[in-house]
Amino acid sequence: MTKLSNEYIEEIVKACRPFAAKGNVIDHIPGLDQSSLTDLGVTIVTLDGETYSAGEDHHTFSFQSISKVITLLMALEDFGKDIVFQKVGMEPTDDFFNSISNLEDYEGKRPYNPLINSGAIATASLIKGGSVDERFDRVLSFLQKITENKDINMNQEVYDSEVKNGSRNKALAYFMESTGVLSNQESDDALDLYHRMNSIEINSLSLAKIGCFLSNHGRLIGRKTQLIQAEHVRTVKAIMLMAGMYNESGTYAVEVGFPLKSGVSGGIVGSVPGSMGIGIIGPAINKKGNSCAGGEALRILSRDLMLNIFHDKNVKNL
Amino acid sequence: MTKLSNEYIEEIVKACRPFAAKGNVIDHIPGLDQSSLTDLGVTIVTLDGETYSAGEDHHTFSFQSISKVITLLMALEDFGKDIVFQKVGMEPTDDFFNSISNLEDYEGKRPYNPLINSGAIATASLIKGGSVDERFDRVLSFLQKITENKDINMNQEVYDSEVKNGSRNKALAYFMESTGVLSNQESDDALDLYHRMNSIEINSLSLAKIGCFLSNHGRLIGRKTQLIQAEHVRTVKAIMLMAGMYNESGTYAVEVGFPLKSGVSGGIVGSVPGSMGIGIIGPAINKKGNSCAGGEALRILSRDLMLNIFHDKNVKNL
Amino acid sequence: MTKLSNEYIEEIVKACRPFAAKGNVIDHIPGLDQSSLTDLGVTIVTLDGETYSAGEDHHTFSFQSISKVITLLMALEDFGKDIVFQKVGMEPTDDFFNSISNLEDYEGKRPYNPLINSGAIATASLIKGGSVDERFDRVLSFLQKITENKDINMNQEVYDSEVKNGSRNKALAYFMESTGVLSNQESDDALDLYHRMNSIEINSLSLAKIGCFLSNHGRLIGRKTQLIQAEHVRTVKAIMLMAGMYNESGTYAVEVGFPLKSGVSGGIVGSVPGSMGIGIIGPAINKKGNSCAGGEALRILSRDLMLNIFHDKNVKNL
Amino acid sequence: MTKLSNEYIEEIVKACRPFAAKGNVIDHIPGLDQSSLTDLGVTIVTLDGETYSAGEDHHTFSFQSISKVITLLMALEDFGKDIVFQKVGMEPTDDFFNSISNLEDYEGKRPYNPLINSGAIATASLIKGGSVDERFDRVLSFLQKITENKDINMNQEVYDSEVKNGSRNKALAYFMESTGVLSNQESDDALDLYHRMNSIEINSLSLAKIGCFLSNHGRLIGRKTQLIQAEHVRTVKAIMLMAGMYNESGTYAVEVGFPLKSGVSGGIVGSVPGSMGIGIIGPAINKKGNSCAGGEALRILSRDLMLNIFHDKNVKNL
Repeated sequence: MTKLSNEYIEEIVKACRPFAAKGNVIDHIPGLDQSSLTDLGVTIVTLDGETYSAGEDHHTFSFQSISKVITLLMALEDFGKDIVFQKVGMEPTDDFFNSISNLEDYEGKRPYNPLINSGAIATASLIKGGSVDERFDRVLSFLQKITENKDINMNQEVYDSEVKNGSRNKALAYFMESTGVLSNQESDDALDLYHRMNSIEINSLSLAKIGCFLSNHGRLIGRKTQLIQAEHVRTVKAIMLMAGMYNESGTYAVEVGFPLKSGVSGGIVGSVPGSMGIGIIGPAINKKGNSCAGGEALRILSRDLMLNIFHDKNVKNL
Repeated sequence: MTKLSNEYIEEIVKACRPFAAKGNVIDHIPGLDQSSLTDLGVTIVTLDGETYSAGEDHHTFSFQSISKVITLLMALEDFGKDIVFQKVGMEPTDDFFNSISNLEDYEGKRPYNPLINSGAIATASLIKGGSVDERFDRVLSFLQKITENKDINMNQEVYDSEVKNGSRNKALAYFMESTGVLSNQESDDALDLYHRMNSIEINSLSLAKIGCFLSNHGRLIGRKTQLIQAEHVRTVKAIMLMAGMYNESGTYAVEVGFPLKSGVSGGIVGSVPGSMGIGIIGPAINKKGNSCAGGEALRILSRDLMLNIFHDKNVKNL
Repeated sequence: MTKLSNEYIEEIVKACRPFAAKGNVIDHIPGLDQSSLTDLGVTIVTLDGETYSAGEDHHTFSFQSISKVITLLMALEDFGKDIVFQKVGMEPTDDFFNSISNLEDYEGKRPYNPLINSGAIATASLIKGGSVDERFDRVLSFLQKITENKDINMNQEVYDSEVKNGSRNKALAYFMESTGVLSNQESDDALDLYHRMNSIEINSLSLAKIGCFLSNHGRLIGRKTQLIQAEHVRTVKAIMLMAGMYNESGTYAVEVGFPLKSGVSGGIVGSVPGSMGIGIIGPAINKKGNSCAGGEALRILSRDLMLNIFHDKNVKNL
Repeated sequence: MTKLSNEYIEEIVKACRPFAAKGNVIDHIPGLDQSSLTDLGVTIVTLDGETYSAGEDHHTFSFQSISKVITLLMALEDFGKDIVFQKVGMEPTDDFFNSISNLEDYEGKRPYNPLINSGAIATASLIKGGSVDERFDRVLSFLQKITENKDINMNQEVYDSEVKNGSRNKALAYFMESTGVLSNQESDDALDLYHRMNSIEINSLSLAKIGCFLSNHGRLIGRKTQLIQAEHVRTVKAIMLMAGMYNESGTYAVEVGFPLKSGVSGGIVGSVPGSMGIGIIGPAINKKGNSCAGGEALRILSRDLMLNIFHDKNVKNL
């Protein structure tokens, strides 16, 4: 089995960077443009506390859909799984992440799961706090703690763009208001919180720390305090495996085989149970919304390091 | 952590049997009727070769949808993953297992995955052999080998019923013929093979052996011969986790946390990576198609024995 | 053939009133409650200028979906059919009147037609005027003119209720904003105008006058001035025939056979080409949204007076 | 208003022929190929018994979907409307003519209406007769009578092609068997009868005769015998108006304004109430399935001859 080192990660970055050419950068998001097409940052943080990193790992980009993982963690901690999963399902879907028609399908008109847009807006309504400001401060504080990065904050320009281009998300929120998933009081605030969380700036190191936090069952490395109950972390990882990579989630479950969540700015967070967290940034995404170079890096890492959870390392020569 | 024993399994059977009252027996399938409502058989076979079993573990019932696992294993071995996944996807779906509308949705009109009816009919077309008889003999022979049970065979009465009530499956097959997923030559034979495989009689011990074979990466216990390549077994398990329990697959991934496949006759096969196979029979099923008592048994087993793959046993007190 | 008279209409009211028992009153709309369950008003205004009327023809109720006819007439007159039908289709749909999923289906994500909620909101954006107030004044003025009723106005209580319970309509508007059917500038105003128009108070006499205006090709009786171009009136009537009675439009085209539009407050406007306008109010509606007693009255009127446009009066003994 | 003459029809053919260039010929149907791309035959038969015709009006082509009109007429006459409309709805749909997903949507899984493929197969099960041969003989005999053309017959080569390429229709039939719309006994025969009826050879003169028969309320010109009850003919025409031109039915109702039914071989039958029948053949069809040149001819005829039923000829200067 391959041994982890910075050199190894550098090789991966070198090998995968050309895959960016198969994708496109979503250039209506502030901070992203064609100049970042071939950027690729890959960072691994192990449960032993070691960090291996290469490429544009210092570039920040907006959180986008990866924020849905944080939303779900906090909602579970704030209200418990019974209340969360009354509002949103835990089933994978074959519809698009921003689908509104699937809200007309499913039992009680709930979103299928918390990792699609409608589901994340509904889940955002379950993050506690007296005002949106207060609730968002809790989010930032939690994120700064688990990434051990005090600089994490929202990018105002991205937020303004999210709000300006947010009509689809508004439609999702008001549709859920019309079916009782959200109350009149909740929808506007949930939507605002959702837009703020999408606009948080982050880099691949911080993503890897988030993945590591998940792999460490809700604790910082070397600490005994459960910041999030282990059961909730396990729930989040199961849903990530089934629904974290848009309509390629199944393909990634088969080919990579551990919990992942991607965003349209090209970020991916990965959590290898009992072993490591992975943070990737590669802004050129494919038609499904996933980083082209980042996806390739994950396939190589999974194979080289035998990270697939459906594969038993104790069984040799497989 | 709970220690495995026959007594422990007996306790589980006793505790879970009452859950059957929440479901119904599909009594149009020959061999199933209301007299089997509270039947419950639970068998575990560990990778160490130990067997623990209790309840109606000697009752046979028809294979139904659990056969889809065997179909996929054999097709992958016969043709390789590239050809298999050109014909059928590997993504979960939110539609019903016998949905025909989802064939109008997805890329190239392929079935979403091999564990829904359309997907299994398509996959059945990729089991090699000169005639349906010959192909079905290969299936029986494979099944007899991995279950170490020479008596496994088809139930003619069930088969006749499958054919007589098979109009939905015929519709699926001919629809796929119309979109080119199946050729004119393939569809009738694939459908017949599919109906035969659904009609195989099996008990919870044999199911546990199948689960164990999956956990052992495609080898019989104590043998080195790969009957199915390990990579294919891994692929099958990933798809089982996402799509094995009908429209409750996500819920089971969260609450039980290892690969499962159920059938409408109330059977469930489970594979705990690196550890054991589980076979369950409990004919009273809920509206989603899953055994009521069997599902409860799985939740208890997963919790007591810490079988959830998103849970790290090395991390204590979780 | 039956001869028109007030007595004849009274007989119809008497015969049809019991059909109200098959339906329910939408009692969340201010002004409607169970006390109006068996109300039934039927008014006919012929192109000769005669009026025949009976029952609760003096009761006012809110316009609701019947306003969509006015919206379409004014938009066609203001912008012409090319611009109107770029924004909205002219095809019938099998989806519900407030469906949002069908906006994800159709070419260019346009609403299927102007008589479903999404279509009417889109069409409302094409009523000219400097502000919503100004645009709504134009609507009121037009309605007062064609009904020859200066008292027609909006009911503030109904409007407040429409806005308060308008989350589904908000979702439709913002979804259309997200797909470019409406611009950022248009959607809020179009939605407000739509809510105001739904809240206009009207009675069966005024409805019959609207029907008569349509039958008279866009002119007041005895006047030569085309208030709306005849071609536009023809277009509106064709769409009413196919899509005016929610998901029973086909049934009404077969059984009644002339252009109709109903609303959930139990009103129906009918236009018999070259002959008469019909106004009906019967607040108890069936599950499809159509007045139970009103529908029965239409079936009897069509049969007795030979009003079906697919039936040739010149052919005797049919 | 334009006066009818052979010269006038010739002018229309000349003016419309170039529109064929916008379409394509379905060349997998025997008898159709690119050589017939610019064919256009237009025939009008008036209720006075006059015939006006021009272009390739002598060319025969296969009946295809226009046969659905005959199926519905005969089923209504054989079983009455209550039984027919228990099996199939009378509502327009926005789905494709060969959609199978819409069978999963609608009440009782019925086809939406008799003019889509599923609906016509279901309706075909209601044409009486002891065997498929006998039932088809009744169809031919009826068709020969109303077209006054003893030569009308099935084209064996087209039939063979229909059967060979009939997997989508098989899927529709077996799906309806699975939901109880058709019984086990009915589906194969209904499908065979459907394929035979699609394969009947016909020309524009015979089509015009069919249209005239509809306009004359189910009687041959100058005869008093009702071959089909007038009420059934009226029903068929109402459904044609809403659903006869595939997913352009609404557009044709607005732009042409009388009952029509088209087929993918480029034929169209039209019935102008109280006035005339129209038969058109123009094999180049657009993406919706309607003849490009034929559609243009209908628009011109409707305008020149004031045939739109939503337009009152008594009102001048419209």
